Order: sequence, then structure tokens, then C-alpha cells
Amino acid sequence: MTQPTIPTALSVALLGGGTVGSQVARLLTEDADLFAERVGAPLHLTGIAVRSLDRPRQAAVDPALYTTDAEALVEDADIVVELMGGIEPARSLIERALRRGAVVVTGNKALLARHGAQLSALAAEHGGSLDGEAAVAAAIPILRPLRDSLAGDRVHRVMGILNGTTNFILDRMDTDGAAYDEVLAEAQRLGYAEADPTADVQGHDAAAKVAILAGLAFGGSFTIDQVDCTGIAAITAQDSAAAAEAGLVVKLLGIAERQVDGAVLRVHPTLVPREHPLAAVRGAFNAVFVEAENAGELMFYGPGAGGRETASAVLGDVVTAARHRVLGSAMRADRAGATAGPPALPITQASTSEMIVLRVCDAPGVLRDVAAVFAEHDVSIEAMRQGPDASDDAVAEAEGRSSVRLRVITHRAPQAALDAVVADLSAAESVYEVVSVLRVEGK
Amino acid sequence: MTQPTIPTALSVALLGGGTVGSQVARLLTEDADLFAERVGAPLHLTGIAVRSLDRPRQAAVDPALYTTDAEALVEDADIVVELMGGIEPARSLIERALRRGAVVVTGNKALLARHGAQLSALAAEHGGSLDGEAAVAAAIPILRPLRDSLAGDRVHRVMGILNGTTNFILDRMDTDGAAYDEVLAEAQRLGYAEADPTADVQGHDAAAKVAILAGLAFGGSFTIDQVDCTGIAAITAQDSAAAAEAGLVVKLLGIAERQVDGAVLRVHPTLVPREHPLAAVRGAFNAVFVEAENAGELMFYGPGAGGRETASAVLGDVVTAARHRVLGSAMRADRAGATAGPPALPITQASTSEMIVLRVCDAPGVLRDVAAVFAEHDVSIEAMRQGPDASDDAVAEAEGRSSVRLRVITHRAPQAALDAVVADLSAAESVYEVVSVLRVEGK
Ligand SMILES: NC(=O)c1ccc[n+]([C@@H]2O[C@H](COP(=O)([O-])OP(=O)(O)OC[C@H]3O[C@@H](n4cnc5c(N)ncnc54)[C@H](OP(=O)(O)O)[C@@H]3O)[C@@H](O)[C@H]2O)c1
Ligand SMILES: NC(=O)c1ccc[n+]([C@@H]2O[C@H](COP(=O)([O-])OP(=O)(O)OC[C@H]3O[C@@H](n4cnc5c(N)ncnc54)[C@H](OP(=O)(O)O)[C@@H]3O)[C@@H](O)[C@H]2O)c1
Repeated sequence: MTQPTIPTALSVALLGGGTVGSQVARLLTEDADLFAERVGAPLHLTGIAVRSLDRPRQAAVDPALYTTDAEALVEDADIVVELMGGIEPARSLIERALRRGAVVVTGNKALLARHGAQLSALAAEHGGSLDGEAAVAAAIPILRPLRDSLAGDRVHRVMGILNGTTNFILDRMDTDGAAYDEVLAEAQRLGYAEADPTADVQGHDAAAKVAILAGLAFGGSFTIDQVDCTGIAAITAQDSAAAAEAGLVVKLLGIAERQVDGAVLRVHPTLVPREHPLAAVRGAFNAVFVEAENAGELMFYGPGAGGRETASAVLGDVVTAARHRVLGSAMRADRAGATAGPPALPITQASTSEMIVLRVCDAPGVLRDVAAVFAEHDVSIEAMRQGPDASDDAVAEAEGRSSVRLRVITHRAPQAALDAVVADLSAAESVYEVVSVLRVEGK
Repeated sequence: MTQPTIPTALSVALLGGGTVGSQVARLLTEDADLFAERVGAPLHLTGIAVRSLDRPRQAAVDPALYTTDAEALVEDADIVVELMGGIEPARSLIERALRRGAVVVTGNKALLARHGAQLSALAAEHGGSLDGEAAVAAAIPILRPLRDSLAGDRVHRVMGILNGTTNFILDRMDTDGAAYDEVLAEAQRLGYAEADPTADVQGHDAAAKVAILAGLAFGGSFTIDQVDCTGIAAITAQDSAAAAEAGLVVKLLGIAERQVDGAVLRVHPTLVPREHPLAAVRGAFNAVFVEAENAGELMFYGPGAGGRETASAVLGDVVTAARHRVLGSAMRADRAGATAGPPALPITQASTSEMIVLRVCDAPGVLRDVAAVFAEHDVSIEAMRQGPDASDDAVAEAEGRSSVRLRVITHRAPQAALDAVVADLSAAESVYEVVSVLRVEGK
């Protein structure tokens, strides 16, 4: 087998240095070694195109990298990352890069929902690539799973909470019974909604994402104009209450559904049963529910916005595409770095919290003695609760001594320290029995 | 750019024709056209290796395909799909295929958790590939997202409900307060637990998956022997009750956690706060929770077992790897078929259900009249509820007529029919007002 020539470095042109772009620039700078290792060649950030050179920028990034000449930047980059937003000049710049066979990664839902199919075709034609995982539900991997993981299945339906702002608003209306205007104002105060919330509350942001999802789920190309769209501005506290009465909750869903002869794309306030996984998606989170012929019902859940979160998705696309560039098809690129990695450690090196249930002597001072054992090993206690129960009574009677049950929940501590606590408790005179020890996670 | 030669067909050797293998064989047979289109070349199933030719087999599959000579089958296949399970002969057969540079797809967690790293290296060395999405959480896309989508991030922790049998048992203990033995027996009766449930209840099945997940999340290679493992056999109804008292629920979690100097891998019954997304995973479902530096908290949810569900994951791997084979690296394989696909349809062609709230005349016969409108358009009613509310009283007083509120939830029906119902209701004399119309999904 002939080895493909491995490039010494790949140049990266970043278009946009705002909320997302600044994070991408920071991570490419701070984690340069990590990227070099994962890609198999260094990623060299050649410049960051912005509108104005006068704004304050990311401290971690070399100020000399900023430029207003996006066209020059795109000219000879191996990888172009577009995070400017809007149709122009993003579209022309991306086209130019794709015509040279470059790797292009974008987070631009507006652009992909209008011209995605045409740009993808251009990428294929010239041997380049176009990825946009960040454009839908930010950090949640959904486009790649639809395209690759479900490539052997038939997707019937994709249904998602695709906009954090509206989910935050509807969630508050549901929880507090508050009115729409009130909650919108609060969301704006908290930074969950923009000063001009039109694109969010009218459903246009979600509609763009539905068009992109439908193309990957069903094949073919769909545009935002094909999405029937109703926003949440007409939803009243009464609607929310009537839904609650019927065991339902109002969510703004984006839905793409396969019919025999086509697909229906829509965004509208939707009533969802309380026990449905989508009903449990709170605040500004996003989730995408997928129904496929064989896989059944899948759900993908996570943060749907944010600079760092979106940067994670962008960089996932960058690394994956760059690996392909570096290793070519002869060797499967996705195995790069498969042998490097951390060693396995024994569980004593884990850090966890525990719920420890004890049966202890019912006498003054016992709680203090028990607490002292935890303190000795530097394990702090989150909650401690004492109470008898029926089984204790029976045991107590049999043993002829009076006992109570003690439930202790610790804060996170080294497993070794927790083990030492349990050993000492088992040996303590006032502890009759360590009834159970279970680890707690997810707090 | 020179076009790579596109193979006329790719041969597929299937090792194993059991629960999963039989579904893969059926789908490759029944959906041959779909696969040919998605891959860019037909997938030709050349044979199915089994232990015995005497068992009844899938009706949809040509009986002449079954063979007991797995070695011959593997000899010249482009793609080898291993669904036999166990270490040998699976390992030797896969090695043989990889040495020829073949595409290999497996669902064998036992094998990957012991020899995954070595087999991956063999694949890379000979220009072949090895994928095993089905080995962890069946149809849930998790290995590919960890490897590709999170390739630009640092994963701190992966935490999952990775075994449906134990989740079913713990869920029942939590819900019904039943004892472990009792629920295990029920699970066996219902087919959720095997006659010999050891691998499941002792956590070995989950441990194998943790080892595989850790390798993809952190890089490097981990084996099942490095996973500290405690099963659920010691969990009592009392533990479950004590957890509930503290707002927690018992789940068997598989956890892989990055530390500064290594990674800790563990499987054990774990207390999870009721409001954590993992706490809501019921019955035999699986879910994987991922915490990454920038992406934040992600969750992947779906069925963790089943012949068809697992076959979906296997075929996703097959199609993706086969696309790479067909198109090579010159053209990004994942764009194959990007232009074929269904047309967009107007929303009137959607099928949905609606909650319709009406203010109607408070008189006998009105319910019958309203119901007649639905019947006329063939829309059937799931629930109808009548009741006054404060706002109605005010309106009624102002209007000098007495009204009641009517809430109707329909079954699924064509959108056009639902629209016609609403139009007729608006025009009906006994209907004073159509207060709200909202679609319902997820029932
Ligand atoms: N923010 C999120 O949470 C999120 C999530 C998912 C996807 N996205 C998508 O990611 C993209 C970027 O979003 P963002 O929130 O980072 O936007 P942003 O904060 O508004 O940043 C836009 C950046 O692009 C630059 N820019 C805009 N027009 C330009 C032009 N004509 N020439 C040169 N530079 C130009 C701006 O320069 P100045 O700094 O000089 O103004 C700014 O640095 C959008 O497509 C968005 O939809 C964002
Ligand atoms: N079932 C699930 O839900 C699920 C989910 C995820 C992953 N998996 C994995 O997928 C794999 C297959 O599982 P399964 O449930 O389909 O197993 P299964 O029903 O037991 O089927 C195994 C198949 O392999 C054949 N086989 C076994 N040993 C063989 C040998 N030495 N030579 C030739 N053929 C042999 C058997 O032949 P006979 O038919 O003649 O016995 C049978 O057709 C396992 O690695 C499992 O861990 C299964």
C-alpha cells in the first residue's frame, strides 16, 4: 500500500470573531497541541475576518490575526470556518473556498436552509467538503447521526425543540402561569432572548433548522420557504393552563415528517403529553426526537446555543474533515490517535459522593461521633437525617437495645476517603450496622 | 481531478443469523434498492454463517444463503458483518478479513471490550475499517458522535444506563416497591431478562460497554478487566425506598471519568437525583449522558436492544463504510445521494391531532351538534370535556347569554379535514367562539 503524503500543517481561515468565532479562535490557539494530535497535523490559524478592527477581542488570541479582508483570507486556506452569519458575503466566500476544493465548516443555519444543497453539490464536484453540525441545536450531535448512523434505516419523523429562547418562555408560562409578554421581557433581561426576538418567537430560526434536518433525514433538499411556520406570540396563559388540565404541555416544535409521496415540514406551538421525553426539556435546552423504521425512537438532548457549546460542534466538524484530508481514504481517518490515551486508574482514585445508611445506638452524642468520623477523613456531609423505621424496631426488640436509622449523604470526595469512613464506621461502637452504601452521581 | 473507479457491487458476508443477523439479512434483501442508492453501488449478500442448518430461518431470505463454513465466506468479501457473538471464532474471522483490508462491522461488545484496540490497529494497518456502533446501546448513535462530533472537544465523563434488563428491574422496584427476586422472575417471563441473567445483573454487559465508550471518549484503549464492577443483585426494596425518601432513584450506571493522570471506569448501582435526565429513563431503554468541556451536558436516548434496533446500527455502519469504499477520499463520501429525495408537501397534507377549545351555547343538543361536525369530516374524537370557567362567566354576562367551554382532543386526522372542522365550527350557530386550536404530537 502506498502511503499518501501527509501535509505538514493545515491552514485555517476563520470568518467571524463574534460569540462563536471568538471561542473557536481561542480553542484553536490554546489547544493547538490537542488538535495537532487528533488531526495528525497542526491546524494553523491564519486569520480572523471581522467587520471592525476596533472592537475588544479575545485575550487569548493574537491581535494581529484580525483582518477586515475576508476575501484574501479565504484565498489559500485549506480549511475555511464561516461564523459570520447571514447570506452575503458568507455565501460567496464559501463558494470561492469550495471551488478550490477546500474543507468548509459553517454554523450558518440561514445560509444552509436556503443554499445548502447547492453548496454541498459544489463541495462534491470539486472534492471539498461542507459540514454544518453547529447550525442545528449547537453542540448536540444530530446532523452526523442522521447522515451516518441512520444511513441504513428509514427516518419517518424528526421532531425537535430547536430554539432555546422560545422553550425558555413557554417553560416559564407553564411553570409560573405567567403571561407571554411578561416572560419575554424577563428572557430579554436575562439574555435568553435578543432585543429583537422576531426570528425566535415567530419560529423562523426553528424553521431554518427543520429544513436542514429534513434534508439529512430524508435525503434531497429542502428550503426554509417550504416550512409552514407559526410562532408563539399568540400563546396565552390560558392555552398553557388548558393544556396542563389535559395532561399536556405547550412546546414550539419543529417537525419534518415523511409521507408516502413527499415530506411535510412545519413549526408551530404543539401540545405534548407530559410523559413524553420532549416535555421534560426545560429552560433554554434543545432536544431532537427521531423516529426511524428499525431504530425506533431516539432522542438527542443538550444545550442549543452558546459560544463555547457551538464552538465544540464547529471544531468537531473541523477535526473530522481535517483527519480525512490528512489520512485520505487509504487509511480510515477516524482511527487517528486510537492508541494514544490515558491509563486506567483503580476505583479508589475516583471521586464520588455516597449515601450511607447506618443503624446506630439511640443515645445522645452518637450523631456527633458519626460526624467526627467523616470529618477525620475530610469528607464533608451534604445531608444527615435520623429516623426510626419498622425493621429497626424489630431488630431493636430482638437485640434488646434501642437503635435509630441514620441516612448520610456526602459531598463529592475521593473514593479512598469514603472507603476509610465506611471502615471506621463499621468498627465504631455506637454503630450497630452499616445498612447500605451506595454512590450518588448527577448532583 | 481523476475519478476513482466505482465498484459495480460490494459483496457482504454475514457471520451469524440470529436475533440481529436475521434482521440484517432481511433488510439487505428487502431494501436492496435503498442500499444500492445510498451506497452508490449494490450490496450483494453472499452468505450467512450459522452453527446449524436445521433451524427455522427468516422467510424473506434465500435459504440457499445459509452455510456453516464461515471461513470460506469471509475469504473474499468486501464487507464482513460479524453478529455471532463471543470471542472465538469471531476474532479470528475478523482478523482474517482485516488483513485483506476489508470493511468489518460488528455488534460484538465482548470482543471489542477485550481486543478492540488491537483489531482497530489491524484495520488501519491494512487500509480496512472496523466499526461497532451496535455494540453499545444498540440503535442509539453514541460511538460515532463521541469519535467524530466531539473530536474537537474534551470529554470529561460518560455516564450511561447501558443495560435494559437491569434498568427494567430497578425501574419496577422503584415504581412498585417490589423485591429484586420477584421482579427478576417477571422480567424473565416477559423476555426482558435471559434464563441466565448473570452477565446483565452482575454488570458485566455494562462493563464491556464502558470499556468501549472510554476508548472513544478519551482516546487510547481500555479493556473490560479495567472496569470496577458491582451488579444489582444486592439491591433491596429498602434501598430503593431510602433513595426515594431522599429524592433519588437507583440506576445501574456505567461511568468512565477522566482524571488528571488517567481514567476511572466503573459500573455500580448509583443513586441519581429524580430531576436528572437519566432518572427519567424507564423500562428497558438505554441512555448515555456525556459531559464535555465546551459542549456541556449531552444526552443520547433510545432502545438499547432488539433485533431490528440493533440491525439499524449495524447497517448504518455498513452504509457509511461502504460509501467511503465506493467514493474514496477524493469526493466526500457522506454526500452520496444528497440530491435524491422526496418533495416538500403543503401542511394540509400533514396528519396530526388537535386540541380545539370552543365557547358554545349552554343548551341541550349542542354537544351532539358539535360532535356531528367532526363526524362529517371523518375526524374522530379522543376526548371531549365540558366546563365553565371564570372568563366565560364574564363574557356571558356581557353578552347576556349563557355559554360553556368545550375542550375537544381529536385522534390523528388529515390536516385538511381538521381545517374543515374548524371552519364549520366557526360558522356554527351554537358555537360562539373558537377559543384556540393547537396541534398535539407525541401521543
Ligand atoms: N451564538 C450561538 O449560540 C449560535 C449557535 C448556533 C449557530 N450560530 C451561528 O453561528 C454564526 C455566528 O454566530 P455568532 O453568534 O457568533 O454571531 P456574532 O456574535 O454576531 O458574530 C459575527 C461575527 O462575524 C463578523 N462579521 C459579520 N459580518 C461580516 C462581514 N460582512 N465581514 C467580515 N466579518 C463579518 C462580525 O464582525 P464584528 O465582530 O466586527 O462585528 C463578528 O465577529 C451565525 O450563523 C449563527 O447563526 C450561533
Ligand atoms: N440481541 C440484541 O439485542 C443485541 C444488541 C446489541 C448487540 N448485540 C450483539 O450482537 C451479536 C449477535 O447477537 P444476537 O442476539 O443476534 O445473537 P444470537 O441470536 O445468539 O445469534 C448468534 C448467531 O451466530 C451464529 N453462530 C454462533 N456461533 C457460531 C459459530 N461458531 N459459527 C457459525 N455461526 C455461529 C448462530 O448460529 P445458529 O443460528 O445456528 O445458532 C446464530 O445465528 C452479539 O455479539 C451481541 O452481543 C445483540
